[in-house]
This record gives sequence, C-alpha cells and structure tokens, in this order.
Amino acid sequence: RIDGDRLWDSLMEMARIGPGIAGGNNRQTLTDEDAEARALFKTWCDEAGLSMGVDQMGTMFMTRPGTDPDALPVYVGSHLDTQPTGGKYDGVLGVLGALEAVRSMNDLGIKTKHPIVVTNWANEEGARFAPAMLASAVFAGVLTQDHAYSRTDLDGKTYGDELKRIGWKGDEEVGTRKMHAYYELHIEQGPILEAEGKDIGVVTHCQGLWWLEFTLTGREAHTGSTPMDMRVNAGLAMARILEMVQEVAMAAQPGAVGGVGQMQFSPNSRNVLPGKVVFTVDIRSPDQAKLDGMRAEIESRAAAICADIGVGCAIDPVGHFDPVTFAPELVGNVRKAAEELGYSHMNLISGAGHDACWAAQVAPATMVMCPCVNGISHNEAEEISREWARAGAEVLFRAVLETAEI
Amino acid sequence: RIDGDRLWDSLMEMARIGPGIAGGNNRQTLTDEDAEARALFKTWCDEAGLSMGVDQMGTMFMTRPGTDPDALPVYVGSHLDTQPTGGKYDGVLGVLGALEAVRSMNDLGIKTKHPIVVTNWANEEGARFAPAMLASAVFAGVLTQDHAYSRTDLDGKTYGDELKRIGWKGDEEVGTRKMHAYYELHIEQGPILEAEGKDIGVVTHCQGLWWLEFTLTGREAHTGSTPMDMRVNAGLAMARILEMVQEVAMAAQPGAVGGVGQMQFSPNSRNVLPGKVVFTVDIRSPDQAKLDGMRAEIESRAAAICADIGVGCAIDPVGHFDPVTFAPELVGNVRKAAEELGYSHMNLISGAGHDACWAAQVAPATMVMCPCVNGISHNEAEEISREWARAGAEVLFRAVLETAEI
Ligand SMILES: NC(=O)NCCC(=O)O
Ligand SMILES: NC(=O)NCCC(=O)O
Repeated sequence: RIDGDRLWDSLMEMARIGPGIAGGNNRQTLTDEDAEARALFKTWCDEAGLSMGVDQMGTMFMTRPGTDPDALPVYVGSHLDTQPTGGKYDGVLGVLGALEAVRSMNDLGIKTKHPIVVTNWANEEGARFAPAMLASAVFAGVLTQDHAYSRTDLDGKTYGDELKRIGWKGDEEVGTRKMHAYYELHIEQGPILEAEGKDIGVVTHCQGLWWLEFTLTGREAHTGSTPMDMRVNAGLAMARILEMVQEVAMAAQPGAVGGVGQMQFSPNSRNVLPGKVVFTVDIRSPDQAKLDGMRAEIESRAAAICADIGVGCAIDPVGHFDPVTFAPELVGNVRKAAEELGYSHMNLISGAGHDACWAAQVAPATMVMCPCVNGISHNEAEEISREWARAGAEVLFRAVLETAEI
Repeated sequence: RIDGDRLWDSLMEMARIGPGIAGGNNRQTLTDEDAEARALFKTWCDEAGLSMGVDQMGTMFMTRPGTDPDALPVYVGSHLDTQPTGGKYDGVLGVLGALEAVRSMNDLGIKTKHPIVVTNWANEEGARFAPAMLASAVFAGVLTQDHAYSRTDLDGKTYGDELKRIGWKGDEEVGTRKMHAYYELHIEQGPILEAEGKDIGVVTHCQGLWWLEFTLTGREAHTGSTPMDMRVNAGLAMARILEMVQEVAMAAQPGAVGGVGQMQFSPNSRNVLPGKVVFTVDIRSPDQAKLDGMRAEIESRAAAICADIGVGCAIDPVGHFDPVTFAPELVGNVRKAAEELGYSHMNLISGAGHDACWAAQVAPATMVMCPCVNGISHNEAEEISREWARAGAEVLFRAVLETAEI
C-alpha cells in the first residue's frame, strides 16, 4: 500500500510554488514558477533513485530501472503546469501519485521486470501556448516540434524561446522512447464520481475536441459618432457567434459541450468599436461524427453571421484530437485494482483532454480518476479529499505493478 | 488669414510623436509619448510668446495677453492625447488650430481686448483612464480631483501617479480660471459633412452619453469536463447583453447609438469558462429622455439575462454627460465666419463628447467641425485634407477674433 500522507504532503509542498490569488496556483508552462516546480520534482526523484532524461520539448522522464534489460518501460505521469487560476491537483496529482508509487516500491523493496518512468509532460494545459497537451502531441508524432516551438503566448513569446530561457530544453529527440504502457492518474474535473458516490473512475474513453480560433475583422470606429448603419462591428458578430455556439452545443445534448474561454478586443478602448476580435471556441464530444458535425455547423453559421454584418471571419483550428478509446487490457487492470482494494468504481468518459490521449496513439494507455468537489476544476477553488487522493494513487500503484510485472 | 501650410506642417510634426502601427498614433494620456508631445507643444508656444499655466490635472493653459487687464480670456483648445490606435487629427487639430490662430495674430500684428488661452486638456480620450474628458470634467466641477486621481488603467496604475511620473502635475488649482468663452475646432469623426459636401459643421449640440461598466461574475470551470447544465457562463451572459444593447440602440433610431469597445475575460484561458467578464457599454443620444430610457432598459434586461444564467451582474456608470446645447451667440459667430469666408456649412450635433461639452457648463462655448474621410475616426486610418484643416482653422480664427474683440 502507498503512503497517502506522504503523497498529500508532497502535493501541498508543490502547491507553494506559483501560488494563485485564491488558494490555488498560477504556475503556467515555461514560466519561472514552472522551472521551480521542475527543480523540486527533480530533487524528489533524485532522492527516490530515479535517473533523468529530458527531451527537446522539455518533458521530464524519471526512470526506475527494471530487472529485465530488454523490457520496455511502463510510463506513469501527468503534468505540473497549471492554468493561470488553476487548482492544486489538476495534473500534479498524476505526477506525484506516480512518484508516490515508486517511493512505495522502494519502501516495500519491490522490483519490477519493466522499468517505471515517472513522467512530467510539458505544456499540458495549453493556457499559455495552444494547443493543450503540446509536448505529448509532438511525442506521438501528431504535431511537429517546429510547429510547437513557434507557438506564441499573448505577449508574442514563443514556446521555443521560453523553453530555452527557463533552462529545460533537453537533448533527447522527442518521441524516440518506446513505451510498454502508459498510465495516468487525474482528478475527474467533472461532477459525476462525486454525484454517484464512487471512489474511482475507470476511464474507458476520452472525448474529442476542436479549438477553433476566430479572428473577426471589423472596422475600428468611434462608438459615439459612427451611426449604427455605418458600423462594421466585430464585437456584435462575436456576440452572435457565442450565442450560436451555445445553441449548437445544446442541440447536440447529451454528450457534447461548447464554450469560449479566451477573448481579445483590439484596440480594446471603451469608445472604439473593435477593429479585431480574436477568441477561441472549444467544442467537444465523445462521438466523432457529432464533433465534426458541430464544427461544420459552427463554421458555416459563423460565416453567415459575419457576412450579414460585413465582418471578415478567419478560423484557425489551433487544437484538435479525435475521441480516444483506451486499451481494454489496461482499463481492466484499473477496474480489477479498484475491486481488489475495495473501492467503489464506475466507467467514465474523460471530458478533459490528457497526455494519455496522445500516449494512446503510440502505446496501450489508460487513466485512473478520482472525484473532485462539485466537479470544479480550472478554478483555484478546485478541491479533493486526502482519501480520494490516496485511493486514486493506490489503484494506480496496483495497476502499474500488474503491467510492470513483479 | 491663417497659414494653412504651417498648420499642416505642425500637425505632421506632432504626429511623429507616439507613432502607431498603421500611419496613425498611439499617444495615450500620461504616457512618455504624451510628455514628449506636451514638450514640443510648449516649445511652439514659447516661440509664439505665450506664457504657461498648468493645473493639477495636467491641463496646459498657454496665454496670449489681451489689451484690457480686466477682460476675461477666450479659451481655445482641444487635446493632444490619442486613442491606442488613433488618428493624427482627433484633438490635435483643435490644439494646433488654436496655436495657428495666435501665430497668425502675431504675424498680422493683431491685438485683442481679451487674452487668448490656447488649451491642451489632459485625458480627453478616456482610453487609458475612464471617463473621457476627465480633466475638463474636474475643471467644470462635475467630478472631483480625488476621483480623477484614483482612476486606474488596465495595469492598475492611477491617474494621479502617472501624472506625477511624467512630470506634468501643475500647481494651479483646477477650475479656478474664469472663461469669457470657449471655442474648440475638431474633426467631425462622422460621415455627415463629407456626404453633404459641406466645408464646415456649425455645432449646435452634443449628444449625451452613459458608459456602463459591467462586471459579470460566473464560475470558472473546465470547458471540456463541465456539463452544459452545470455552467455559470459569464461569457454567454455577455454575448446576450451585447446583442440586447444592439437591439435597444436600433429600437431608438434615429438619433441614438450603442456599442461595446472594451472587453476583458478572466482568467482568459482557452479551456476555462470565464469566472469574470468586464466590459463597457457606450450609449448615446442627443435626447435626454431617450438616453436615460435606453440606460434603464439595458440595466433591467441585463439583470434578467444574468439572472436566467445565474451570473452575478454589477453595473458601474464610469462615464456620463447630459446632452449639451451650445451658446447661440458663439454658434452664430461660427456660422457668420463660415459665411464671410465663403465656406459651405451646415448645423451639426456632435456624436462624440468633447472638452467643449464640459466647458459649456462654466462659460459660453461652441465648436467648429471639419469633415474627415468616410467618417472614420478612432482608427489609424483617420484622414482629412489640407484644405479642410485650413478652412476649419480659418473659421475658428475669425470666430475667436469676433469674441476676443480686436
Ligand atoms: N486536464 C486538463 O485540464 N487538460 C487541459 C486540456 C483540456 O482542455 O482538456
Ligand atoms: N472626440 C472624442 O473622440 N472624444 C472621446 C470621448 C468620446 O468618447 O466621445
């Protein structure tokens, strides 16, 4: 069994780095705080006897050797970066849960045939550099490293420059590692487990996603002296598109979502109708046809809305993954572990994207989920209980041991 | 007659300070660029023999003495600050047109009974610190200096601190000066004069305004894993309010406008439903009852929209002025000057707010307007012809002489 208190203490210690303003964290990818978190994590890995490899995307691979020199490693991880107003558990639980698993193996003198690699993927959140899960996408060969390096944040800084700046550009070529399997522990970030009173989510699928970045081009004009019929109002077109996205998502119920998190007006002055409005629509569904149908409907209706107002409309799909089906054998290991440990459990479809979704392209992969209070995540108020964390880490530990073979 | 080429050269020289990215200007109030513009303007005033007074809001008063020691001065001015993506003429034409008037008086050896004070009001645009026409509002006693000093920009810097930082906090108590009259030359910032083929707008009124700053409070949540029926989506409420403002403005036609120029999502991350959305609605009408009716309707409908979604809605009226009627005698002087000089002219209601609107509270005031290309303003593409500028400055010169008495 793992040490739930040690895991909790590590979570709390990590949460001191990049504190937020309301009890959570602001530790965005490739910031100084990210570098500090990486250094602390490395210290802990050193103490646990793990050896480090870092790839050119900045992902950290911390290896506990196996007994069979020919056996491929079992990868176990998640991410230490957070949203600008993120919680203390999203991602962090998965990395420190994996670390706790190897710490416990050390304590119990357990040797595995397959090496275990505790993994901290870079830029999972995608808050600073779109898309999310950028490093695992390059690892899986879905995006090129050049594309990733050229991604910019709102200040125009690039991923490549910032990675070098914080000193975490490794020399390993990305994606050359071969995985025997990949496991990831994560908080649910949704309300289902808590509502159903279950300890463990057995994650069978992950819903697919499109991030559609809209750039609407209107005409900058004075809000006072420009008559209504002379306006080319990009803000009005934006408002109509947001309402339309809501309609499309509601019409696709159940099993779909749509919304907008990022918005920029230019020049963003109270008495200037915006010449440019940039925002990103996020739509998801576990059903590929539904997801692509939503995208097509949104794009065609947005074009009509913009044409009606005379606003230019460019759409850049800055993030995408298809719905994922996780490896049945690994899913079975998670379910079996929950049962043997006496935890209640249920099948889940992940609403959020995870590095496991890209790892699933190159290896058998799955996830373990634990509840979070009121389903709240991407919010500093994100909360879980010590018991939920321990249960999740124990199921992870047991499932990993099953695959890594004692 | 004034020297149209000298005026144009000064306009072009001033436009070199705080250049924009598309041929216009970014010379926002109390920035280093604003300080540089003030210094250049002061040099020109020194050369023209004017003496400087600066008040505690940072407004510059440059005096050409009159012949009668008891006669109150005629004030003539506008503003040198610009929008973040502003034009080269909005405000600047009024200040440099006034300077050209006194330069011409010097050239022609004209002495006036009343002193002439060329005036550069601080923070007319309100782009950085709401509301617009802040210094003239304090001058007119409509807002307190303490309120003005505490206004913040998007970075949280205050008016008071920034005024000190750029070194332009004067020692004159604000509003103690008494005005015999106030004239302001300005570009129309709308399409009417050009469409009607008129050289000069005789400004009889200015429409009133409300700036309503909305703060919508939703619940930050994951865009993927938060089901549609669990969202408290402040972005959706904002979209519905923007559409509603458009409806209210259209229903109030003719003679009303409504729109939104400034918008901020928090935390502004693609996969986080915004916990907070702040934006400013700008509504205007020359009809007081219509203006206040629009405000009441917008506030009540916004409350209903937000209640429906469960979003908190706070509304702060950060800017306001009632519709203004300019002084008939001064308006008559402008009309007469245009006629005597052979310029075509028509009556206009100003769509934009101007320092003249606050000056009108404490003295007889009016404005002279000249056309601008396609009615475009608050846009770097703002353009006027050399002839329009000269005609406007000549009418200003003649009307001012009428009031200042040779
Ligand atoms: N788990 C998580 O929040 N990932 C961020 C990517 C996403 O938006 O789903
Ligand atoms: N003239 C001008 O653009 N003034 C700014 C104040 C307003 O928004 O009307």
